[in-house]
Amino acid sequence: MNSFDFSPIGHITSCYKEKFGIPRQPGLVSLAKAQLILKQDFTEECIRSLQGFSHLWLSFVFHGNQQKAWKALVRPPRLGGDSKVGVFASRSPFRPNPLGLSVVKLEEIEIKNARVILHLSGCDLLDETPVLDIKPYLPYVDSISDAMGGFAHHKPDKKLDVVFTEEANMQCQLQSEQLGQDLHALIEQILQLDPRPSYQQGESGDRVYAMKLYDFDLRWQYCENKKIKVLSLLDSRV
Amino acid sequence: MNSFDFSPIGHITSCYKEKFGIPRQPGLVSLAKAQLILKQDFTEECIRSLQGFSHLWLSFVFHGNQQKAWKALVRPPRLGGDSKVGVFASRSPFRPNPLGLSVVKLEEIEIKNARVILHLSGCDLLDETPVLDIKPYLPYVDSISDAMGGFAHHKPDKKLDVVFTEEANMQCQLQSEQLGQDLHALIEQILQLDPRPSYQQGESGDRVYAMKLYDFDLRWQYCENKKIKVLSLLDSRV
Repeated sequence: MNSFDFSPIGHITSCYKEKFGIPRQPGLVSLAKAQLILKQDFTEECIRSLQGFSHLWLSFVFHGNQQKAWKALVRPPRLGGDSKVGVFASRSPFRPNPLGLSVVKLEEIEIKNARVILHLSGCDLLDETPVLDIKPYLPYVDSISDAMGGFAHHKPDKKLDVVFTEEANMQCQLQSEQLGQDLHALIEQILQLDPRPSYQQGESGDRVYAMKLYDFDLRWQYCENKKIKVLSLLDSRV
Repeated sequence: MNSFDFSPIGHITSCYKEKFGIPRQPGLVSLAKAQLILKQDFTEECIRSLQGFSHLWLSFVFHGNQQKAWKALVRPPRLGGDSKVGVFASRSPFRPNPLGLSVVKLEEIEIKNARVILHLSGCDLLDETPVLDIKPYLPYVDSISDAMGGFAHHKPDKKLDVVFTEEANMQCQLQSEQLGQDLHALIEQILQLDPRPSYQQGESGDRVYAMKLYDFDLRWQYCENKKIKVLSLLDSRV
Protein backbone atom coordinates (compact mmCIF):
# COMPACT_ATOMS: atom_id res chain seq x y z
CA MET A 1 0.00 0.00 0.00
CA ASN A 2 2.95 2.33 -0.46
CA SER A 3 1.93 3.43 -3.92
CA PHE A 4 -0.89 3.08 -6.41
CA ASP A 5 -0.74 2.97 -10.15
CA PHE A 6 -3.45 4.51 -12.33
CA SER A 7 -3.92 4.51 -16.09
CA PRO A 8 -5.81 7.23 -17.97
CA ILE A 9 -9.32 6.32 -19.12
CA GLY A 10 -9.04 9.02 -21.78
CA HIS A 11 -7.58 12.37 -22.76
CA ILE A 12 -8.78 15.95 -23.07
CA THR A 13 -8.87 17.99 -26.26
CA SER A 14 -9.12 21.59 -25.13
CA CYS A 15 -9.06 25.14 -26.47
CA TYR A 16 -6.20 25.72 -24.00
CA LYS A 17 -3.00 24.63 -25.70
CA GLU A 18 -0.62 25.97 -23.05
CA LYS A 19 -0.84 26.66 -19.33
CA PHE A 20 -0.69 30.45 -19.55
CA GLY A 21 -4.21 31.82 -19.83
CA ILE A 22 -6.07 28.88 -18.30
CA PRO A 23 -8.54 30.17 -15.70
CA ARG A 24 -7.68 29.22 -12.16
CA GLN A 25 -10.88 27.32 -11.53
CA PRO A 26 -13.47 25.58 -13.67
CA GLY A 27 -16.68 27.50 -14.35
CA LEU A 28 -15.00 30.92 -14.49
CA VAL A 29 -14.86 30.78 -18.29
CA SER A 30 -18.16 29.09 -19.06
CA LEU A 31 -17.57 29.27 -22.82
CA ALA A 32 -14.34 27.25 -22.71
CA LYS A 33 -15.02 23.98 -24.49
CA ALA A 34 -13.26 20.67 -24.27
CA GLN A 35 -13.81 17.10 -25.28
CA LEU A 36 -12.97 14.06 -23.24
CA ILE A 37 -12.17 11.21 -25.62
CA LEU A 38 -12.34 7.88 -23.85
CA LYS A 39 -10.05 5.00 -24.69
CA GLN A 40 -11.49 2.15 -26.69
CA ASP A 41 -11.79 -0.09 -23.60
CA PHE A 42 -14.45 2.22 -22.21
CA THR A 43 -17.49 1.53 -24.31
CA GLU A 44 -20.87 3.19 -24.53
CA GLU A 45 -22.04 0.94 -21.69
CA CYS A 46 -19.66 2.66 -19.27
CA ILE A 47 -21.58 5.94 -19.61
CA ARG A 48 -25.16 4.62 -19.72
CA SER A 49 -27.51 7.13 -17.97
CA LEU A 50 -24.78 9.78 -17.80
CA GLN A 51 -26.92 12.13 -19.92
CA GLY A 52 -29.20 12.75 -16.90
CA PHE A 53 -26.41 14.61 -15.13
CA SER A 54 -25.70 18.23 -16.00
CA HIS A 55 -22.24 18.28 -14.41
CA LEU A 56 -19.39 15.84 -13.94
CA TRP A 57 -16.32 15.56 -11.76
CA LEU A 58 -13.13 14.80 -13.59
CA SER A 59 -10.14 13.47 -11.71
CA PHE A 60 -7.10 14.13 -13.82
CA VAL A 61 -3.32 14.46 -13.79
CA PHE A 62 -1.55 17.81 -13.94
CA HIS A 63 0.66 16.47 -16.72
CA GLY A 64 2.42 19.71 -17.64
CA ASN A 65 4.18 19.81 -14.28
CA GLN A 66 7.03 17.37 -14.36
CA GLN A 67 9.72 20.04 -14.22
CA LYS A 68 8.67 21.76 -10.99
CA ALA A 69 8.53 20.17 -7.54
CA TRP A 70 5.80 20.83 -4.98
CA LYS A 71 6.42 23.04 -1.96
CA ALA A 72 4.73 23.02 1.44
CA LEU A 73 3.77 26.70 1.03
CA VAL A 74 2.28 28.31 -2.07
CA ARG A 75 1.28 31.86 -2.97
CA PRO A 76 -2.30 31.71 -4.22
CA PRO A 77 -3.08 34.33 -6.90
CA ARG A 78 -6.17 35.14 -4.86
CA LEU A 79 -4.04 36.70 -2.12
CA GLY A 80 -2.19 38.88 -4.60
CA GLY A 81 0.92 36.75 -4.41
CA ASP A 82 1.95 38.27 -1.09
CA SER A 83 0.78 35.67 1.38
CA LYS A 84 1.61 32.02 1.61
CA VAL A 85 -0.78 29.23 2.45
CA GLY A 86 -0.27 25.48 2.76
CA VAL A 87 -0.39 23.44 -0.42
CA PHE A 88 -3.40 21.50 0.93
CA ALA A 89 -5.27 24.76 1.58
CA SER A 90 -4.87 25.58 -2.11
CA ARG A 91 -5.80 24.15 -5.48
CA SER A 92 -2.27 24.67 -6.78
CA PRO A 93 -1.29 22.22 -9.53
CA PHE A 94 2.03 21.60 -7.78
CA ARG A 95 0.99 19.05 -5.18
CA PRO A 96 2.54 15.96 -3.55
CA ASN A 97 0.32 13.89 -5.86
CA PRO A 98 -0.37 15.96 -9.01
CA LEU A 99 -4.08 15.09 -9.01
CA GLY A 100 -6.53 17.60 -10.41
CA LEU A 101 -10.24 17.82 -9.76
CA SER A 102 -12.64 19.81 -11.92
CA VAL A 103 -16.38 20.08 -12.10
CA VAL A 104 -17.40 20.55 -15.74
CA LYS A 105 -20.66 20.90 -17.60
CA LEU A 106 -21.72 17.96 -19.75
CA GLU A 107 -23.00 19.43 -23.01
CA GLU A 108 -23.35 16.41 -25.25
CA ILE A 109 -22.39 12.79 -25.66
CA GLU A 110 -21.12 11.63 -29.02
CA ILE A 111 -20.23 8.14 -30.20
CA LYS A 112 -17.82 8.21 -33.12
CA ASN A 113 -16.23 5.08 -34.58
CA ALA A 114 -17.24 3.26 -31.40
CA ARG A 115 -15.37 5.82 -29.30
CA VAL A 116 -17.14 7.79 -26.56
CA ILE A 117 -16.61 11.55 -26.75
CA LEU A 118 -17.96 13.77 -23.99
CA HIS A 119 -18.43 17.40 -24.98
CA LEU A 120 -17.77 19.63 -21.99
CA SER A 121 -17.82 23.31 -21.16
CA GLY A 122 -16.58 25.55 -18.35
CA CYS A 123 -13.29 23.68 -18.38
CA ASP A 124 -9.95 24.74 -16.95
CA LEU A 125 -8.08 21.88 -18.56
CA LEU A 126 -4.92 21.89 -20.62
CA ASP A 127 -4.96 20.11 -23.97
CA GLU A 128 -3.96 16.43 -23.71
CA THR A 129 -4.74 16.22 -19.99
CA PRO A 130 -4.91 12.54 -18.95
CA VAL A 131 -8.20 11.81 -17.17
CA LEU A 132 -8.33 9.09 -14.51
CA ASP A 133 -11.98 9.08 -13.55
CA ILE A 134 -15.44 10.52 -14.26
CA LYS A 135 -18.04 10.78 -11.53
CA PRO A 136 -21.53 12.27 -11.75
CA TYR A 137 -22.08 15.50 -9.81
CA LEU A 138 -24.68 14.77 -7.12
CA PRO A 139 -26.22 18.07 -5.99
CA TYR A 140 -27.54 16.73 -2.69
CA VAL A 141 -24.03 15.61 -1.70
CA ASP A 142 -21.67 17.95 -3.53
CA SER A 143 -23.49 21.29 -3.38
CA ILE A 144 -22.87 22.69 0.10
CA SER A 145 -24.17 26.21 -0.15
CA ASP A 146 -23.29 27.19 3.42
CA ALA A 147 -19.68 25.97 3.24
CA MET A 148 -17.03 28.48 4.27
CA GLY A 149 -14.36 28.96 1.62
CA GLY A 150 -11.60 30.59 3.66
CA PHE A 151 -9.50 33.11 1.75
CA ALA A 152 -11.15 32.08 -1.54
CA HIS A 153 -14.79 32.16 -0.50
CA HIS A 154 -16.09 34.46 -3.22
CA LYS A 155 -15.85 34.31 -6.97
CA PRO A 156 -13.00 36.57 -8.10
CA ASP A 157 -14.18 39.84 -9.58
CA LYS A 158 -13.76 40.69 -13.20
CA LYS A 159 -10.53 42.66 -13.20
CA LEU A 160 -10.33 44.28 -16.62
CA ASP A 161 -12.41 45.66 -19.45
CA VAL A 162 -11.59 43.94 -22.71
CA VAL A 163 -11.48 46.00 -25.91
CA PHE A 164 -10.60 44.76 -29.40
CA THR A 165 -8.67 46.59 -32.12
CA GLU A 166 -10.50 46.82 -35.45
CA GLU A 167 -8.11 44.22 -36.82
CA ALA A 168 -8.61 41.77 -33.95
CA ASN A 169 -12.33 42.20 -34.22
CA MET A 170 -12.34 41.22 -37.89
CA GLN A 171 -10.02 38.26 -37.32
CA CYS A 172 -12.27 37.09 -34.50
CA GLN A 173 -15.34 37.25 -36.65
CA LEU A 174 -13.71 35.34 -39.49
CA GLN A 175 -12.28 32.61 -37.28
CA SER A 176 -15.49 32.30 -35.24
CA GLU A 177 -17.41 31.45 -38.38
CA GLN A 178 -14.92 28.79 -39.41
CA LEU A 179 -14.72 27.30 -35.93
CA GLY A 180 -18.43 27.58 -35.15
CA GLN A 181 -17.76 29.22 -31.81
CA ASP A 182 -18.00 32.82 -30.61
CA LEU A 183 -14.31 33.57 -30.06
CA HIS A 184 -14.97 37.20 -29.19
CA ALA A 185 -17.02 36.23 -26.15
CA LEU A 186 -14.59 33.47 -25.18
CA ILE A 187 -11.58 35.81 -25.32
CA GLU A 188 -13.46 38.39 -23.27
CA GLN A 189 -14.20 35.81 -20.56
CA ILE A 190 -10.60 34.66 -20.43
CA LEU A 191 -8.85 38.03 -20.47
CA GLN A 192 -11.11 39.93 -18.08
CA LEU A 193 -9.74 37.69 -15.30
CA ASP A 194 -6.20 38.82 -16.16
CA PRO A 195 -4.08 35.72 -16.70
CA ARG A 196 -0.81 37.38 -15.60
CA PRO A 197 0.92 36.35 -12.41
CA SER A 198 -0.20 38.44 -9.44
CA TYR A 199 3.05 40.39 -9.15
CA GLN A 200 2.60 41.82 -12.66
CA GLN A 201 -1.03 42.79 -12.24
CA GLY A 202 -1.81 46.49 -12.28
CA GLU A 203 1.02 47.19 -14.71
CA SER A 204 0.42 48.59 -18.19
CA GLY A 205 2.68 49.34 -21.12
CA ASP A 206 3.90 48.32 -24.55
CA ARG A 207 4.71 44.72 -23.69
CA VAL A 208 2.79 42.30 -25.88
CA TYR A 209 1.39 39.17 -24.20
CA ALA A 210 0.35 36.07 -26.07
CA MET A 211 -1.34 32.75 -25.53
CA LYS A 212 -2.38 29.90 -27.78
CA LEU A 213 -6.12 29.42 -28.07
CA TYR A 214 -7.17 26.54 -30.33
CA ASP A 215 -4.80 26.92 -33.28
CA PHE A 216 -4.57 30.67 -32.90
CA ASP A 217 -2.02 33.02 -31.43
CA LEU A 218 -3.92 35.51 -29.31
CA ARG A 219 -2.00 38.72 -28.60
CA TRP A 220 -2.88 41.60 -26.29
CA GLN A 221 -1.58 44.59 -24.30
CA TYR A 222 -2.45 46.18 -20.99
CA CYS A 223 -3.59 49.80 -21.18
CA GLU A 224 -4.29 52.35 -18.47
CA ASN A 225 -7.62 52.42 -16.60
CA LYS A 226 -7.86 48.65 -16.17
CA LYS A 227 -8.24 48.05 -19.87
CA ILE A 228 -6.90 45.19 -21.90
CA LYS A 229 -6.53 45.59 -25.66
CA VAL A 230 -6.76 42.56 -27.94
CA LEU A 231 -4.30 43.08 -30.79
CA SER A 232 -4.70 40.04 -32.99
CA LEU A 233 -5.91 36.48 -33.35
CA LEU A 234 -3.88 34.78 -36.05
CA ASP A 235 -3.75 31.20 -37.23
CA SER A 236 -0.51 29.80 -35.81
CA ARG A 237 -0.28 27.11 -38.48
CA VAL A 238 0.25 29.48 -41.42
CA MET B 1 2.04 8.86 -19.93
CA ASN B 2 0.58 5.34 -19.84
CA SER B 3 0.37 5.21 -16.09
CA PHE B 4 0.87 7.37 -13.03
CA ASP B 5 2.10 6.42 -9.63
CA PHE B 6 0.73 8.05 -6.46
CA SER B 7 1.73 7.63 -2.83
CA PRO B 8 -0.65 8.23 0.09
CA ILE B 9 -0.15 11.48 2.00
CA GLY B 10 -1.84 9.90 5.00
CA HIS B 11 -4.40 7.41 6.24
CA ILE B 12 -7.88 7.48 7.71
CA THR B 13 -8.89 6.30 11.16
CA SER B 14 -12.63 5.82 11.00
CA CYS B 15 -15.54 4.49 13.05
CA TYR B 16 -16.25 2.21 10.05
CA LYS B 17 -14.08 -0.87 10.44
CA GLU B 18 -15.65 -2.86 7.61
CA LYS B 19 -17.43 -1.99 4.37
CA PHE B 20 -20.88 -3.19 5.37
CA GLY B 21 -22.77 -0.32 6.98
CA ILE B 22 -20.83 2.56 5.44
CA PRO B 23 -23.28 5.11 4.05
CA ARG B 24 -23.28 5.36 0.28
CA GLN B 25 -22.31 9.03 0.20
CA PRO B 26 -20.57 11.42 2.56
CA GLY B 27 -22.80 13.75 4.56
CA LEU B 28 -25.64 11.22 4.98
CA VAL B 29 -24.36 10.27 8.42
CA SER B 30 -23.21 13.62 9.72
CA LEU B 31 -22.17 12.17 13.09
CA ALA B 32 -19.66 9.73 11.58
CA LYS B 33 -16.22 10.84 12.67
CA ALA B 34 -12.84 10.13 11.20
CA GLN B 35 -9.30 11.38 11.47
CA LEU B 36 -6.89 11.88 8.65
CA ILE B 37 -3.39 11.37 9.98
CA LEU B 38 -0.81 12.83 7.62
CA LYS B 39 2.57 11.25 7.07
CA GLN B 40 5.53 12.92 8.70
CA ASP B 41 6.67 14.51 5.41
CA PHE B 42 3.57 16.70 5.43
CA THR B 43 4.24 19.24 8.13
CA GLU B 44 2.08 21.91 9.69
CA GLU B 45 3.14 24.26 6.87
CA CYS B 46 1.28 22.11 4.32
CA ILE B 47 -2.06 22.93 5.96
CA ARG B 48 -1.50 26.62 6.79
CA SER B 49 -4.82 28.54 6.43
CA LEU B 50 -6.82 25.32 6.08
CA GLN B 51 -8.82 26.20 9.21
CA GLY B 52 -10.73 28.86 7.23
CA PHE B 53 -12.44 26.15 5.18
CA SER B 54 -15.44 24.32 6.61
CA HIS B 55 -15.27 21.44 4.13
CA LEU B 56 -12.55 19.53 2.31
CA TRP B 57 -12.31 17.24 -0.70
CA LEU B 58 -10.45 14.03 -0.09
CA SER B 59 -9.15 12.02 -3.03
CA PHE B 60 -8.54 8.50 -1.80
CA VAL B 61 -8.12 4.91 -2.87
CA PHE B 62 -10.86 2.29 -2.48
CA HIS B 63 -8.36 -0.04 -0.85
CA GLY B 64 -10.75 -2.78 0.24
CA ASN B 65 -11.49 -3.66 -3.38
CA GLN B 66 -8.64 -5.70 -4.70
CA GLN B 67 -10.63 -8.89 -5.03
CA LYS B 68 -13.39 -7.63 -7.31
CA ALA B 69 -12.93 -6.29 -10.84
CA TRP B 70 -14.84 -3.34 -12.26
CA LYS B 71 -17.66 -3.83 -14.74
CA ALA B 72 -18.99 -1.46 -17.39
CA LEU B 73 -22.49 -1.64 -15.90
CA VAL B 74 -23.40 -1.39 -12.23
CA ARG B 75 -26.66 -1.60 -10.27
CA PRO B 76 -26.84 1.49 -8.10
CA PRO B 77 -28.65 0.92 -4.77
CA ARG B 78 -30.62 4.05 -5.59
CA LEU B 79 -32.45 2.26 -8.38
CA GLY B 80 -33.40 -0.62 -6.11
CA GLY B 81 -30.83 -2.90 -7.70
CA ASP B 82 -33.06 -3.52 -10.73
CA SER B 83 -31.57 -1.17 -13.30
CA LYS B 84 -28.06 -0.94 -14.58
CA VAL B 85 -26.17 2.27 -15.31
CA GLY B 86 -22.66 2.86 -16.60
CA VAL B 87 -19.85 2.79 -14.08
CA PHE B 88 -19.02 6.44 -14.88
CA ALA B 89 -22.63 7.46 -14.21
CA SER B 90 -22.24 6.03 -10.71
CA ARG B 91 -20.10 6.52 -7.64
CA SER B 92 -19.52 2.78 -7.34
CA PRO B 93 -16.23 1.89 -5.63
CA PHE B 94 -15.51 -0.66 -8.38
CA ARG B 95 -14.07 1.60 -11.08
CA PRO B 96 -11.36 1.34 -13.72
CA ASN B 97 -9.18 3.45 -11.42
CA PRO B 98 -10.34 2.83 -7.83
CA LEU B 99 -10.25 6.52 -6.93
CA GLY B 100 -12.68 7.82 -4.34
CA LEU B 101 -13.82 11.40 -3.81
CA SER B 102 -15.53 12.61 -0.65
CA VAL B 103 -16.46 15.99 0.68
CA VAL B 104 -16.05 15.99 4.47
CA LYS B 105 -16.47 18.53 7.23
CA LEU B 106 -13.31 19.80 8.87
CA GLU B 107 -13.98 19.86 12.61
CA GLU B 108 -10.57 20.50 14.10
CA ILE B 109 -6.87 20.47 13.36
CA GLU B 110 -4.55 18.83 15.85
CA ILE B 111 -0.77 18.68 15.88
CA LYS B 112 0.50 15.75 17.92
CA ASN B 113 4.16 14.76 18.08
CA ALA B 114 4.75 16.91 15.00
CA ARG B 115 2.10 14.95 13.09
CA VAL B 116 -0.88 16.71 11.52
CA ILE B 117 -4.24 15.15 12.41
CA LEU B 118 -7.39 16.44 10.74
CA HIS B 119 -10.60 15.69 12.63
CA LEU B 120 -13.42 15.14 10.17
CA SER B 121 -17.14 14.39 10.25
CA GLY B 122 -19.79 13.28 7.79
CA CYS B 123 -17.40 10.69 6.43
CA ASP B 124 -18.14 7.60 4.36
CA LEU B 125 -14.61 6.27 4.66
CA LEU B 126 -13.42 2.83 5.64
CA ASP B 127 -10.76 2.60 8.36
CA GLU B 128 -7.18 2.71 6.99
CA THR B 129 -8.23 4.34 3.70
CA PRO B 130 -5.13 5.74 1.95
CA VAL B 131 -5.62 9.41 1.09
CA LEU B 132 -3.88 10.87 -1.95
CA ASP B 133 -4.88 14.52 -1.78
CA ILE B 134 -6.70 17.19 0.22
CA LYS B 135 -8.25 20.18 -1.50
CA PRO B 136 -10.27 22.99 0.07
CA TYR B 137 -13.98 23.07 -0.83
CA LEU B 138 -14.60 26.32 -2.72
CA PRO B 139 -18.32 27.12 -2.57
CA TYR B 140 -18.29 29.46 -5.56
CA VAL B 141 -16.84 26.70 -7.76
CA ASP B 142 -18.02 23.47 -6.21
CA SER B 143 -21.53 24.29 -5.07
CA ILE B 144 -23.74 24.13 -8.16
CA SER B 145 -27.22 24.37 -6.76
CA ASP B 146 -29.02 24.08 -10.10
CA ALA B 147 -27.11 20.99 -11.26
CA MET B 148 -29.22 18.07 -12.42
CA GLY B 149 -28.36 14.85 -10.63
CA GLY B 150 -29.93 12.28 -12.95
CA PHE B 151 -31.33 9.22 -11.21
CA ALA B 152 -29.72 10.28 -7.92
CA HIS B 153 -30.83 13.90 -7.79
CA HIS B 154 -32.45 13.89 -4.35
CA LYS B 155 -31.17 12.84 -0.97
CA PRO B 156 -32.39 9.30 -0.25
CA ASP B 157 -35.24 9.18 2.24
CA LYS B 158 -34.92 7.71 5.67
CA LYS B 159 -36.11 4.16 5.17
CA LEU B 160 -36.60 2.74 8.64
CA ASP B 161 -37.46 3.66 12.20
CA VAL B 162 -34.74 2.60 14.58
CA VAL B 163 -35.73 1.21 17.99
CA PHE B 164 -33.38 -0.09 20.69
CA THR B 165 -33.93 -3.00 23.07
CA GLU B 166 -33.54 -2.11 26.74
CA GLU B 167 -30.23 -3.96 26.74
CA ALA B 168 -28.87 -2.18 23.66
CA ASN B 169 -29.93 1.13 25.11
CA MET B 170 -27.94 0.57 28.28
CA GLN B 171 -24.89 -0.68 26.40
CA CYS B 172 -25.05 2.38 24.18
CA GLN B 173 -25.20 4.73 27.12
CA LEU B 174 -22.26 3.08 28.83
CA GLN B 175 -20.06 2.98 25.73
CA SER B 176 -21.00 6.54 24.71
CA GLU B 177 -19.68 7.84 28.00
CA GLN B 178 -16.41 6.00 27.63
CA LEU B 179 -15.95 7.03 24.00
CA GLY B 180 -17.18 10.59 24.43
CA GLN B 181 -19.56 10.27 21.48
CA ASP B 182 -23.32 9.79 21.27
CA LEU B 183 -23.45 6.28 19.83
CA HIS B 184 -27.24 6.11 20.06
CA ALA B 185 -27.61 8.99 17.60
CA LEU B 186 -24.82 7.68 15.35
CA ILE B 187 -26.37 4.20 15.15
CA GLU B 188 -29.75 5.74 14.39
CA GLN B 189 -28.28 7.75 11.50
CA ILE B 190 -26.52 4.71 10.05
CA LEU B 191 -29.32 2.17 10.35
CA GLN B 192 -32.25 4.32 9.23
CA LEU B 193 -30.68 4.28 5.73
CA ASP B 194 -30.78 0.46 5.75
CA PRO B 195 -27.31 -0.81 4.92
CA ARG B 196 -28.53 -4.05 3.31
CA PRO B 197 -28.14 -4.66 -0.39
CA SER B 198 -31.20 -3.52 -2.34
CA TYR B 199 -32.45 -7.02 -3.11
CA GLN B 200 -32.85 -7.78 0.60
CA GLN B 201 -34.62 -4.55 1.48
CA GLY B 202 -38.23 -4.83 2.61
CA GLU B 203 -37.62 -8.24 4.19
CA SER B 204 -38.04 -8.84 7.91
CA GLY B 205 -37.45 -11.85 10.14
CA ASP B 206 -35.23 -13.46 12.74
CA ARG B 207 -31.95 -13.06 10.89
CA VAL B 208 -29.42 -11.09 12.92
CA TYR B 209 -27.27 -8.57 11.08
CA ALA B 210 -24.02 -7.18 12.40
CA MET B 211 -21.38 -4.58 11.63
CA LYS B 212 -18.29 -3.35 13.39
CA LEU B 213 -18.50 0.21 14.64
CA TYR B 214 -15.35 1.45 16.38
CA ASP B 215 -14.39 -1.55 18.54
CA PHE B 216 -17.97 -2.69 18.97
CA ASP B 217 -20.09 -5.37 17.38
CA LEU B 218 -23.42 -3.78 16.54
CA ARG B 219 -26.25 -6.29 16.05
CA TRP B 220 -29.78 -5.72 14.83
CA GLN B 221 -32.89 -7.30 13.27
CA TYR B 222 -35.53 -6.16 10.82
CA CYS B 223 -39.10 -6.11 12.15
CA GLU B 224 -42.41 -5.50 10.42
CA ASN B 225 -43.69 -1.98 9.68
CA LYS B 226 -40.33 -0.64 8.51
CA LYS B 227 -38.76 -0.97 11.90
CA ILE B 228 -35.22 -1.92 12.75
CA LYS B 229 -34.44 -3.24 16.23
CA VAL B 230 -30.97 -2.73 17.70
CA LEU B 231 -30.15 -5.82 19.76
CA SER B 232 -26.74 -5.14 21.21
CA LEU B 233 -23.54 -3.13 21.11
CA LEU B 234 -20.76 -5.17 22.63
CA ASP B 235 -17.04 -4.59 22.87
CA SER B 236 -15.50 -6.93 20.31
CA ARG B 237 -12.16 -7.02 22.14
CA VAL B 238 -13.44 -8.79 25.27
